[in-house]
Amino acid sequence: MREREVLELLARRLAVGDDCAVIPFRGTNLLLTTDMLHRASDFPEGTTAYTIGWRAAAVSLSDIAAMGGRPLGLVVALGSPEFGRNFIEELLAGLEDCCNLCGARIVGGDLDRHQELTLVSTALGLADRPIPRSGAKAGELVCVTGPLGRTAAALKLFQLGEPERANRLFRFTPRIREGLRLASFASAMMDISDGLARSLYQLAEASGVGFRIEYEKLPVLPEVEELAADEGERREMTLFTGEDFELLFTLPEERLPAAEAAVEEACPFTIIGRALSGRKLLLAVGGREEELADRGYEH
Amino acid sequence: MREREVLELLARRLAVGDDCAVIPFRGTNLLLTTDMLHRASDFPEGTTAYTIGWRAAAVSLSDIAAMGGRPLGLVVALGSPEFGRNFIEELLAGLEDCCNLCGARIVGGDLDRHQELTLVSTALGLADRPIPRSGAKAGELVCVTGPLGRTAAALKLFQLGEPERANRLFRFTPRIREGLRLASFASAMMDISDGLARSLYQLAEASGVGFRIEYEKLPVLPEVEELAADEGERREMTLFTGEDFELLFTLPEERLPAAEAAVEEACPFTIIGRALSGRKLLLAVGGREEELADRGYEH
Repeated sequence: MREREVLELLARRLAVGDDCAVIPFRGTNLLLTTDMLHRASDFPEGTTAYTIGWRAAAVSLSDIAAMGGRPLGLVVALGSPEFGRNFIEELLAGLEDCCNLCGARIVGGDLDRHQELTLVSTALGLADRPIPRSGAKAGELVCVTGPLGRTAAALKLFQLGEPERANRLFRFTPRIREGLRLASFASAMMDISDGLARSLYQLAEASGVGFRIEYEKLPVLPEVEELAADEGERREMTLFTGEDFELLFTLPEERLPAAEAAVEEACPFTIIGRALSGRKLLLAVGGREEELADRGYEH
Repeated sequence: MREREVLELLARRLAVGDDCAVIPFRGTNLLLTTDMLHRASDFPEGTTAYTIGWRAAAVSLSDIAAMGGRPLGLVVALGSPEFGRNFIEELLAGLEDCCNLCGARIVGGDLDRHQELTLVSTALGLADRPIPRSGAKAGELVCVTGPLGRTAAALKLFQLGEPERANRLFRFTPRIREGLRLASFASAMMDISDGLARSLYQLAEASGVGFRIEYEKLPVLPEVEELAADEGERREMTLFTGEDFELLFTLPEERLPAAEAAVEEACPFTIIGRALSGRKLLLAVGGREEELADRGYEH
């Protein structure tokens, strides 16, 4: 058994892969999701303590958003090699500001001295009708809630020595409000954590459909346009780098006007393609179609 | 501001210190608790992968038990430097067996490559009437659900090169069943994670009472009697080493017969002392009284 297979086994047994666990409870559903972040793989040199705290809360809240849920509370386990006052104050402020923005509250936690800075946030949420990844049907529209390439651009800015702009991009807004509104319309939904391409493959597999995506319709973050050295890099940043944390969802076409009316202010979204009955994933670029590569961000 | 003060600030803001967060919800209460364990401080050389998995689930479930709650689900974040098949299979088996024993279920998780083995388990539970730490009243009986010194003895056995016995002791049973039965009787409850002495101080502070504990009445694990080199070490292992994960609770004396009848089979417990109106913590040993030291296990 190869390591990759072991990882798949483990992922299956821990039910990793869904955005949230769904626990039916007293006529509604509780949502539970946990995310581990740590220094080496998640926080490039230049990430501030405030951004670290923000992002630790945001990744779990984004999973709640992806189910169309609202957060009930968050617990955070913090392992850190340093407990200096400034660092801790800033980290807490980031955690709390992100929670406040989403109407969430930190209700508990655990503290530990750890060789490497490690944060695990776990969010508890609620959804009367959780939106699964498995509900997409052929012919439906495929949409995203916002521009792609956010983390790709931030990583590039960290490299370029522009930590302030990088940090700002890194502090994404979990799409809780958007998810709640879209829950009445979307047939399938998830957040884009491993890149649009990988997320489309995951949605396709869960729903038993394919997708045809129009590259020219993808909303791209201005910073990606600015920073990408060439078309190849632009495409890489938009489709594959990942951690956009925008919502990717499908929508029956007849519900489009109602969805647009309902979410108009809270949540502009962009139609990027259509679900297909075959299992293929096609990318239409400049009038030609190619197969979309199945790869994405490796954590 | 000294590091200890920073830690206290952080602990307050993250609401660390209660066994669980309590979230009132639709006529009942949801419980949420998270615990971080990692190689350097929690798993001595010789701890098996099975025991590691077991203990990761058990610490969170013990917090649910301490509130008189029942578990609804568990999520586990695993950061590991190794993903060998045997290691992972054993770890999962430990997690799952401990959950099964408690009527709990792993509903989700996260996976990460990490320099140091790090597990964070988060348990969601339910309690119509959560038992706080703050309910103890002067005159009430103080009780524990089982023998003390379990982790102390296990650590000693690891040192002595008896890993099999050590692992067995290390795999404690979270007192879910006992907690559920005691919830009808106990006025205050917590699990003993930092040692009986430290736990008594925490209970005393939360309830605004003191305690008089009779050292001779303490139930002591047979392995402690066997392994303690002298009376000083016996006392250390029983009162201060901690991570016993037994329930410590107070009980109005008039409820004792009913409590004993109700829990007889599921949960023998031992009366170890009485709550006092003053804030002092006394230890009665051999007819003399001394002040109980306020120290315990440092994680």
